[in-house]
Amino acid sequence: MKVSELGEFGLIDRLTKIVPINDKDVVVGYGDDCSCVNINGKLILFTNDIQVENRHFLKSLQSPRDIGWKLISVNVSDVLSCGGIPKWSQISLGLPKELDYSFIENVYKGIKEALDFYRFSLIGGNISSSSEIILDLFLVGETERFLSRSSAKEGEFLYINGYTGLSRAGLELLMMRKKTYEDFEKRLIKAFTRPVVKLDTTKLLQRSANACIDISDGLVADLGHIAFQSNVKTILVKEKIPVHPDLEAFCKKYKKDPYDYLLYGGEDYVILFSSEKDLEEKDIFKIGFVEKGRGVYLLDDKKEIELEIKGFEHL
Amino acid sequence: MKVSELGEFGLIDRLTKIVPINDKDVVVGYGDDCSCVNINGKLILFTNDIQVENRHFLKSLQSPRDIGWKLISVNVSDVLSCGGIPKWSQISLGLPKELDYSFIENVYKGIKEALDFYRFSLIGGNISSSSEIILDLFLVGETERFLSRSSAKEGEFLYINGYTGLSRAGLELLMMRKKTYEDFEKRLIKAFTRPVVKLDTTKLLQRSANACIDISDGLVADLGHIAFQSNVKTILVKEKIPVHPDLEAFCKKYKKDPYDYLLYGGEDYVILFSSEKDLEEKDIFKIGFVEKGRGVYLLDDKKEIELEIKGFEHL
Repeated sequence: MKVSELGEFGLIDRLTKIVPINDKDVVVGYGDDCSCVNINGKLILFTNDIQVENRHFLKSLQSPRDIGWKLISVNVSDVLSCGGIPKWSQISLGLPKELDYSFIENVYKGIKEALDFYRFSLIGGNISSSSEIILDLFLVGETERFLSRSSAKEGEFLYINGYTGLSRAGLELLMMRKKTYEDFEKRLIKAFTRPVVKLDTTKLLQRSANACIDISDGLVADLGHIAFQSNVKTILVKEKIPVHPDLEAFCKKYKKDPYDYLLYGGEDYVILFSSEKDLEEKDIFKIGFVEKGRGVYLLDDKKEIELEIKGFEHL
Repeated sequence: MKVSELGEFGLIDRLTKIVPINDKDVVVGYGDDCSCVNINGKLILFTNDIQVENRHFLKSLQSPRDIGWKLISVNVSDVLSCGGIPKWSQISLGLPKELDYSFIENVYKGIKEALDFYRFSLIGGNISSSSEIILDLFLVGETERFLSRSSAKEGEFLYINGYTGLSRAGLELLMMRKKTYEDFEKRLIKAFTRPVVKLDTTKLLQRSANACIDISDGLVADLGHIAFQSNVKTILVKEKIPVHPDLEAFCKKYKKDPYDYLLYGGEDYVILFSSEKDLEEKDIFKIGFVEKGRGVYLLDDKKEIELEIKGFEHL
């Protein structure tokens, strides 16, 4: 059987069973955005994200600086989704021998910008030659309280700390390879090439969040992780999902349904969380609620529709 | 300029300058076998090692189980060389879509054997498709006292905790693709395919070692790291370098000079350290001493020869 027939999650499921964890200092192992261990009373988070040329990024469409920025951001997003802040990182590079030095130099300049922005350091690494460019970041974070995907409870509300769908619209615009772009199009492209993780949400999450995940596979797919791992029914209220004016302009211009983007666009790196509290904070959108049951539903003008879970498979 | 023109160390040197470390909790950053941070008074080690198909391992020659074992061992070796013990690990996998599941399943069985042997856990990971097989391990360790490459002092002795050269002889035997091998040849092949890191040396290292490194690039190359980073002259005493009977048999049979293997064979994962103490422990070999000066020398029947530093470049 080929690994692609098992799919990303089928494969992970089989492999993790081979290496069970037996360590009382491990607070959280597989199955969440980060693993978590207890070191002298501190909750330390580990996450890693391997980015492969032509699968995660396209040298022909994205600048090396943006690729470096994004490598850091996607990992920071995983740490934030566990309620934490990033502390230290290590990198593994696989580079083709004939790769021009300026490429990786500029990736590092983008990494540096992101490290300065998120305020942590790269402290070690490792290089090998490879046939395609591989950038693999290991990020160590710290949290006061570990926020899991699997702890949503009936009666809670669902919140996001930003807009969804922008990144996918940006990727589509980039793929059009147009000579010129309108201003709103440039902003959408930037949402894809240079996602900004809102680390200042950490305090709110620590105070109020229960279940938490970052939206990398798409709103519905990631809410699906919360719903199925928490064993609850989650309901998105259609009219409450915020539509960014740039996405609106995009959908109008290219005759697209914004909900394809809002619900299924990936790589938003927006935080989705549940809370029993009725929050009214700036830039935090209440988009749904949690009930007894199972699955992901959309409430559209009093009609409840079960949503199909479809997200990005990395394999 | 192509990255291969800069070479592994030239490239690392340039890239690390782009991202300087500014964090008082970082005890050791780039340039050693592990980085080290202080978490609530504990010295925590981080290391990572990316293994790429056809560069670090050959699917046609090595069993997947052995590949998994070795992935863990090479990282454990880095932790031991900083005086530590392994605690937790994360993995990044890059897998071709058409790869047979049984391959990676058996890699994981080898990983499991090594985790049980070295007594720590794999607690998280990440998968992507890629054109060649990529196995990237991130290992977290803990040490009482950080042993660096750069702290050797004149007057100290040099020690190793095992035999060198066996792994390279084993690789050469494997490359011969013979139908049958003699027993001593099988043992040499195993030194290459299934290196065993002597974690029980940790206590001795904590008690007695000053500078420390693991031999992955070859005895001379890694002693060179100690010599140049410590700014000392290191002298190997030719007759004191232990020659394993299996290597002796190999060199006799294939008409090879054992010193090519002892001095320049890589992937031994033996620990090389300096100590002011005159140690007489089992399986610890005193092979030289440290003087004022610079470089790596061989003392051969009262004649001192400066050795050329040549080791394996991963780029």
